[in-house]
Amino acid sequence: LKLFSLNSNRALSEEIADVIGLELGKCSVSRFSDGEIQINIEESIRGCDVFVIQSTSLPVNDNIMELLIMIDALKRASARTINVVMPYYGYARQDRKARSREPITAKLVANILETAGATRMITLDLHAPQIQGFFDIPIDHLMGVPILAEYFQTKNLDDIVIVSPDHGGVVRTRKMADRLKAPIAIIDKRRPKPNVAEVMNIIGNIQGKTCILIDDIIDTAGTITLAANALVENGAKEVYACCTHPVLSGPAIERIQHSKIKELVITNSIALPEDKHMDKLVQLSVAPLIAEAI
Amino acid sequence: LKLFSLNSNRALSEEIADVIGLELGKCSVSRFSDGEIQINIEESIRGCDVFVIQSTSLPVNDNIMELLIMIDALKRASARTINVVMPYYGYARQDRKARSREPITAKLVANILETAGATRMITLDLHAPQIQGFFDIPIDHLMGVPILAEYFQTKNLDDIVIVSPDHGGVVRTRKMADRLKAPIAIIDKRRPKPNVAEVMNIIGNIQGKTCILIDDIIDTAGTITLAANALVENGAKEVYACCTHPVLSGPAIERIQHSKIKELVITNSIALPEDKHMDKLVQLSVAPLIAEAI
Ligand SMILES: Nc1ncnc2c1ncn2[C@@H]1O[C@H](COP(=O)(O)O)[C@@H](O)[C@H]1O
Ligand SMILES: Nc1ncnc2c1ncn2[C@@H]1O[C@H](COP(=O)(O)O)[C@@H](O)[C@H]1O
Repeated sequence: LKLFSLNSNRALSEEIADVIGLELGKCSVSRFSDGEIQINIEESIRGCDVFVIQSTSLPVNDNIMELLIMIDALKRASARTINVVMPYYGYARQDRKARSREPITAKLVANILETAGATRMITLDLHAPQIQGFFDIPIDHLMGVPILAEYFQTKNLDDIVIVSPDHGGVVRTRKMADRLKAPIAIIDKRRPKPNVAEVMNIIGNIQGKTCILIDDIIDTAGTITLAANALVENGAKEVYACCTHPVLSGPAIERIQHSKIKELVITNSIALPEDKHMDKLVQLSVAPLIAEAI
Repeated sequence: LKLFSLNSNRALSEEIADVIGLELGKCSVSRFSDGEIQINIEESIRGCDVFVIQSTSLPVNDNIMELLIMIDALKRASARTINVVMPYYGYARQDRKARSREPITAKLVANILETAGATRMITLDLHAPQIQGFFDIPIDHLMGVPILAEYFQTKNLDDIVIVSPDHGGVVRTRKMADRLKAPIAIIDKRRPKPNVAEVMNIIGNIQGKTCILIDDIIDTAGTITLAANALVENGAKEVYACCTHPVLSGPAIERIQHSKIKELVITNSIALPEDKHMDKLVQLSVAPLIAEAI
């Protein structure tokens, strides 16, 4: 068994290695002068079961290419199996043709990973569980909900309701609610007519309650902050939010800062750059979960 | 027949379209807030023979992913054939395992282009012609030498000799010399002992002659500028240099500026950013050559 980390999330890789009680394999991943990726694997891996840890978060295209090139190098160095550990699966939202002539990039990524030589995938909270079917190799699909639920359990909050920020997240919300033995509510956004502002209708009772919003990805944080504010306006006592994958791009940090969200609970599936740290954030580790799957 | 340009070299794409007498197809290639590529093909291409023009120059990983995603979108929109026009093929120098446990990224790129759905390749001066064999689809391999030779013909230089800056470039140098009816010379770099400076030995007669150095790629320009200076030190009258692919990364521009090179002749296979323009540069167009191949 050998564990290698690429550049997207070294802190998480080191934590995973620690939990397993292994050292990370020696390999340098750098750039030639013209920006091309140069990979040198600095120890023999012939006949080994190799695990490569890489989230395909920003810079997503560089991170994907690093991963493909590493898989190619491992394959040519006669690794026995090549197990890709991808805590965050980039391009997962492009998982269907929503309009004519759109790509299905999540499937393209699956295809090129297999072409490069991946023999097994381990990933966490895919945007749609159907993406598992994009692969012909074995795939382990881990869940962030137990980690998030455990955190809220230890907080011992009273009179809580778990809230889905949109219709797509109701299944996840139900799972969280089961673990916390709480009821659910749903933000039922709709646009009554084209070019008319959206109405934030809330299905379920949130009056005077502590709401916990849950999503898989928080990207620009538009949905989650609008939802939080709507909950407070409609009588919620306080609003927590949580997600597995903190993409937090563009205006996300500012929006969360200025929203009614009391605390945002995330995992370390994506490394958080220094300039995105803020008081409201609580980051939980997925290292034990991933270590167990390895 | 439909022609689409991605983001690496729009000026060249427009020139190619002009020469053929077509409009470029409508498609937008942009970024989501988190850096993921978003492609919208804005006209029907069902049943069409589609040509996609993209050099995989800097930012190479973004340019490769743009191309793959475009191919995926075209395939799913029922294009009849998907013809990739790649004036510059990135990662071509990683075309073999020079050391243990290295990737062969040029082959990886070939594999993932085919996986995405490319049905034919058109490319220019591959770093090694063997890369043609990395593909199982038809590949047209165009040559820059005639374009470069024609330029020097019209210059009517007297008493010229074509010089290869290293051993790897002799075949190309011979082709250029045939067209210009000139003799060749070779810079025979060797290191007499480890940790001793390289000796620039020149094979062939360059005394009092006008030298034309030729290479396929000029990247950091170390090789070509050292060669030019050695030629002048050994009695050359003046030194021109030329190449097909102006990668020109890192210290390249400065090195060329301060070298004995009188004029550097390149093609537009790679778009030259504003800050890389300089007086010594002459850029020739490969648009007519590529248009003919389409
Ligand atoms: N990186 C991205 N950022 C924002 N939107 C995206 C991204 N990737 C895909 N999409 C769009 O998001 C939609 C899918 O999101 P969802 O409805 O939440 O599954 C599709 O219409 C995609 O075109
Ligand atoms: N982008 C790059 N920049 C500099 N060197 C490279 C690059 N890609 C590959 N190489 C190295 O260049 C060598 C091949 O160059 P060549 O001997 O000219 O074919 C190999 O040892 C590669 O490891």
